[in-house]
Amino acid sequence: MKALCKCDKKYGAKLIDTDIPKIKPDELLIKVTRTSICGSDLPIYEWKGWAKKRIKPPFTFGHELCGEVIEMGEKARGFTKGDFVSVESHIFCGLCYQCRNDQRHVCANMKILGIDTVGGFSEYAAIPARCAWKHPDKKFKDIGSIMEPLGNAVHAVLVEDVVSKTVLVTGCGSQGLFAIDVARAGGASKIIAVEGAAFRKKLAKKMGADVVFDPKEVNLLSKIKKYAGDGGVDVVCEMSGNPNAINLGLKAVKNAGRFTAFGLTKDKIKIDYSNDIVFKGIKIYAIAGREIFKSWYKMENLLRSKAINPRPVITHVYPMKDYKKAFETMLDPQRRCGKVVMIP
Amino acid sequence: MKALCKCDKKYGAKLIDTDIPKIKPDELLIKVTRTSICGSDLPIYEWKGWAKKRIKPPFTFGHELCGEVIEMGEKARGFTKGDFVSVESHIFCGLCYQCRNDQRHVCANMKILGIDTVGGFSEYAAIPARCAWKHPDKKFKDIGSIMEPLGNAVHAVLVEDVVSKTVLVTGCGSQGLFAIDVARAGGASKIIAVEGAAFRKKLAKKMGADVVFDPKEVNLLSKIKKYAGDGGVDVVCEMSGNPNAINLGLKAVKNAGRFTAFGLTKDKIKIDYSNDIVFKGIKIYAIAGREIFKSWYKMENLLRSKAINPRPVITHVYPMKDYKKAFETMLDPQRRCGKVVMIP
Amino acid sequence: MKALCKCDKKYGAKLIDTDIPKIKPDELLIKVTRTSICGSDLPIYEWKGWAKKRIKPPFTFGHELCGEVIEMGEKARGFTKGDFVSVESHIFCGLCYQCRNDQRHVCANMKILGIDTVGGFSEYAAIPARCAWKHPDKKFKDIGSIMEPLGNAVHAVLVEDVVSKTVLVTGCGSQGLFAIDVARAGGASKIIAVEGAAFRKKLAKKMGADVVFDPKEVNLLSKIKKYAGDGGVDVVCEMSGNPNAINLGLKAVKNAGRFTAFGLTKDKIKIDYSNDIVFKGIKIYAIAGREIFKSWYKMENLLRSKAINPRPVITHVYPMKDYKKAFETMLDPQRRCGKVVMIP
Amino acid sequence: MKALCKCDKKYGAKLIDTDIPKIKPDELLIKVTRTSICGSDLPIYEWKGWAKKRIKPPFTFGHELCGEVIEMGEKARGFTKGDFVSVESHIFCGLCYQCRNDQRHVCANMKILGIDTVGGFSEYAAIPARCAWKHPDKKFKDIGSIMEPLGNAVHAVLVEDVVSKTVLVTGCGSQGLFAIDVARAGGASKIIAVEGAAFRKKLAKKMGADVVFDPKEVNLLSKIKKYAGDGGVDVVCEMSGNPNAINLGLKAVKNAGRFTAFGLTKDKIKIDYSNDIVFKGIKIYAIAGREIFKSWYKMENLLRSKAINPRPVITHVYPMKDYKKAFETMLDPQRRCGKVVMIP
Repeated sequence: MKALCKCDKKYGAKLIDTDIPKIKPDELLIKVTRTSICGSDLPIYEWKGWAKKRIKPPFTFGHELCGEVIEMGEKARGFTKGDFVSVESHIFCGLCYQCRNDQRHVCANMKILGIDTVGGFSEYAAIPARCAWKHPDKKFKDIGSIMEPLGNAVHAVLVEDVVSKTVLVTGCGSQGLFAIDVARAGGASKIIAVEGAAFRKKLAKKMGADVVFDPKEVNLLSKIKKYAGDGGVDVVCEMSGNPNAINLGLKAVKNAGRFTAFGLTKDKIKIDYSNDIVFKGIKIYAIAGREIFKSWYKMENLLRSKAINPRPVITHVYPMKDYKKAFETMLDPQRRCGKVVMIP
Repeated sequence: MKALCKCDKKYGAKLIDTDIPKIKPDELLIKVTRTSICGSDLPIYEWKGWAKKRIKPPFTFGHELCGEVIEMGEKARGFTKGDFVSVESHIFCGLCYQCRNDQRHVCANMKILGIDTVGGFSEYAAIPARCAWKHPDKKFKDIGSIMEPLGNAVHAVLVEDVVSKTVLVTGCGSQGLFAIDVARAGGASKIIAVEGAAFRKKLAKKMGADVVFDPKEVNLLSKIKKYAGDGGVDVVCEMSGNPNAINLGLKAVKNAGRFTAFGLTKDKIKIDYSNDIVFKGIKIYAIAGREIFKSWYKMENLLRSKAINPRPVITHVYPMKDYKKAFETMLDPQRRCGKVVMIP
Repeated sequence: MKALCKCDKKYGAKLIDTDIPKIKPDELLIKVTRTSICGSDLPIYEWKGWAKKRIKPPFTFGHELCGEVIEMGEKARGFTKGDFVSVESHIFCGLCYQCRNDQRHVCANMKILGIDTVGGFSEYAAIPARCAWKHPDKKFKDIGSIMEPLGNAVHAVLVEDVVSKTVLVTGCGSQGLFAIDVARAGGASKIIAVEGAAFRKKLAKKMGADVVFDPKEVNLLSKIKKYAGDGGVDVVCEMSGNPNAINLGLKAVKNAGRFTAFGLTKDKIKIDYSNDIVFKGIKIYAIAGREIFKSWYKMENLLRSKAINPRPVITHVYPMKDYKKAFETMLDPQRRCGKVVMIP
Repeated sequence: MKALCKCDKKYGAKLIDTDIPKIKPDELLIKVTRTSICGSDLPIYEWKGWAKKRIKPPFTFGHELCGEVIEMGEKARGFTKGDFVSVESHIFCGLCYQCRNDQRHVCANMKILGIDTVGGFSEYAAIPARCAWKHPDKKFKDIGSIMEPLGNAVHAVLVEDVVSKTVLVTGCGSQGLFAIDVARAGGASKIIAVEGAAFRKKLAKKMGADVVFDPKEVNLLSKIKKYAGDGGVDVVCEMSGNPNAINLGLKAVKNAGRFTAFGLTKDKIKIDYSNDIVFKGIKIYAIAGREIFKSWYKMENLLRSKAINPRPVITHVYPMKDYKKAFETMLDPQRRCGKVVMIP
């Protein structure tokens, strides 16, 4: 089969011929129909930052995928051939404190598919059965690979209800765009987005933002507060990991409001702990991954009832042989993309 | 001024001339612009049931109203002349355990406006300032009197989030209709209504129910469960007080689901406590009134963002002089009405 | 091996010789060190009520047990020979909506060990690995079999926090006695118990009840309310299933309070739905089983910190050959027992 | 009357003769029986830091006090002469978004007694009636002034339940000491304290800490994690505001755990946002003040049931004329004090 291999400790990747994986007793063999590129695939591709410490080439990477079940290991319960599944990339152990307390998404022994194990940018993939989400039909075959990242947004936005609330989304990459969609579906009263790239500003509007501010806007904080009313926003969904956005969000949230920390910073950051956190009596939810499988159920239901529609976030679809174009699109310094899909 | 008086211990009411009320130091004088008839006004009008024990004629009844502030008592903070206000009918004491623990809506010393005190079916009304909800403008002057009952539905439906959930609404009087509206705004994935009256079935559809079943439908329970999927509904909003509907709801809710008890039964009822409650591990929320003022904030925001629109529920508007027609409409045995508004 | 068999469709049971069970790939073989008798074992023994419909003799019953792991099936992860385990009696499927939404204790396809499957009143037992709770050591070998019912009380009492709250426990069988212990550990400010049997009244005091009322006490409701103060109790833990106790609890709980429904009624019951539930704005939590494994973690921690001590509830310990005495003790019409343990 | 006056913009204070305050219609006149010194009184006394910007001498400071009601303004409901009251120092407006959403403790228009208004280090004090907590009797007259700070700890620790959980308390000033007491009452399984001062280490043990670590201990983090087990502590109560302690707490808390931010830092601080917050999926609660009056009810009940006993934290009691000694005690660089009480 064809597989996208991180073969060497340098920039790029290669489409190679390799064997179809053999599954273990608790795994499924998937014929991969769609994959998508996550922001965290970029340091692997570029051979940068954390990737140089964690990634061990050569191996097939990629952790956003969907496909059809071809074969089931003997310990894999609940699947039959032909099932259409999306993949949960967090391979939880099932035995640690977190797993046994319904917090599998922050399992103490977590491995990430396509980062710590062989991934799914390939024609076939071996997937732990406990990480497969079975769809009732093939209705979502076009968006099956983006359900993993969409699940992040579902968890980030809906960790507490947003109904009737003002929501600030900082950063409108695919995660921020999904967050806007989910906030709207959850009944948010006003959705305020902050984004610098023109292409994504437009998408933010399309996804349902009531207003999109540029991060360089003069008096941005007071404009956000004014737009929100009642002294600030009820909820911040920080999806960018940009230190300025984080501090902006902490200042924009009203007393007793909620701040959701999703975006990852590269380094340590400075915050005004007393004034922006303690005195305001806020609550901060850190979000890593999706609740397994609570977030998946929510997502499937929201998609089926058409309360959300993530399709406009998919801005580019390439055959996997054009993977270079796909990664270049993701790496565009003007950020003229949402989600980029590759078809094996 | 004109006021609708429950003057005698018998059927009916009279529109009388009476003095404009004098306000106490903690009250507001309101020029009433709209009122509406609550289901609980009917036993007063008909001189039936609980009303015969609790109501002390002669007095002006009515507790759903809105209007303009004309005069403020010296202890009334936060209002100016001309403010447009809706009225919270639950006159909480502010000093009891419940009031000091943010549960004013079930105050231990509660009095209900227009039931235990002089009400608001009149041109002017004296209202405790702590029970007035000030709107930022007059945008909702047509629906200002129905915000009190709408608030019930907001509290009943949103006591826990409904996003992505299947919701069963039993009984589509005005409260059930509002509940459908709120559930849709809150992101419910499927809304299943049960109602017997043809007029209200149509309204239920209009408000956003995905399907409306007749209570007499054969195999109703299994049809509801099948429509919901996953073994039953996530949430029941029981808005009718009909014992059959209550038992239907308890059977339709899935294991670990939520049952919201809002509708009032006339008498004690029989329930299958072990099978329908304990074994299923469900949660039951009893809803009396609205959270003061949490529900009001939610409602105002949902209305402003157009997430909800209760206007179709107002099916009849009469001048108050036609109060007999208004009450007859409400008492229609075929239930061909939603909310009935009277203009003083 | 010896096993206590429900051999015939009539009163009683027999201690028989039978084969040591063969385990399936996902099971553990346990050398049973202690068992205890649950209230639900009585109808099986007596051949009464629901048991006649559900139980299919001949089979070994019993679902409260602990022991040592002797052998592990090939799919059983996380155990080694010699591990000391208590058994979760609820055999959840792991695949249904409830299981995948962290509600395994009300799994849609639940089987109960020793009721729907071969149980553990025997020298050896085959147990699904996913239903075994591994203790870090053998410190609790004397109470290992009562952790299953203790977990019920942990879940029932702590479904919401009780710290600083007044708690009414109705019914002081072993579940009520455990509930008192847990409520005290959780920081309840006053614990009021209701129990009729003299033996259990004394035990209730010993476990930490501040006051124990007899159900026949004159003006019981007003005495409870007076003792609690602030208009009623904050929390009711209804552990008896007695219709009078249920209605007493619903009346004793204060507005916006919490009622926990654990005890099982034999038949349908009558309740004052409007006055005792709706108008009071209470919350009812139905409790079936224990949260798997949240309740187990809590229990283990509470035991290790000595915040709870369930040992006084074990009032009788018999060798299994004296099973007749053990069951007679449980069936004592004067209820002169707490938990009855049998050692195989 | 005698009053402790911050008379000049320099170090110290003066005990002066001044008029008994005249109360406004919504105020109570209190004969002050006890006061205590808060950490935030020190910058006022020393004329340092934020105090120089916010405080406007001359005025009477002090915001921890209790006493007897002598006179009631005409708008003050719910009090009679002779009532024994403690004082809530947060003067909330009652009209803003936060106040009307049950978040009075972070009122948008907050004034702090004795900081923004005339305080209570004096023989008599005028107190807004809405900020007075009426005790049912005089049982707590010795600790009436420390209920305000005790309430902080009640809110900080019990914002979510701690039952069966491991709790790390960083900083054992009076707030940390109270927090230990409350955590124990709430059923914490292990309480780990971090404190550098010998005097306070001893007090921490006395209040119920299972172990007290010195901040300079080698391998402190791994010792804490080892003591807690299961990969870290469930709950951190950060009571010191020390940046090292904050970062220690963020590293010590387990995945999906809870971090309570109470202590105030002097400046902005640096944190490892991605690794210590986002990836761990934790929840951070910022605590400012006490829930009004939820925390007060909890506190009163915990004191009455003897679940907590804050008395050992009061290490020094002075007549107010010895205020210099009292403040010196608080300013001891070796921190040989808990709470310091002054009697007017």
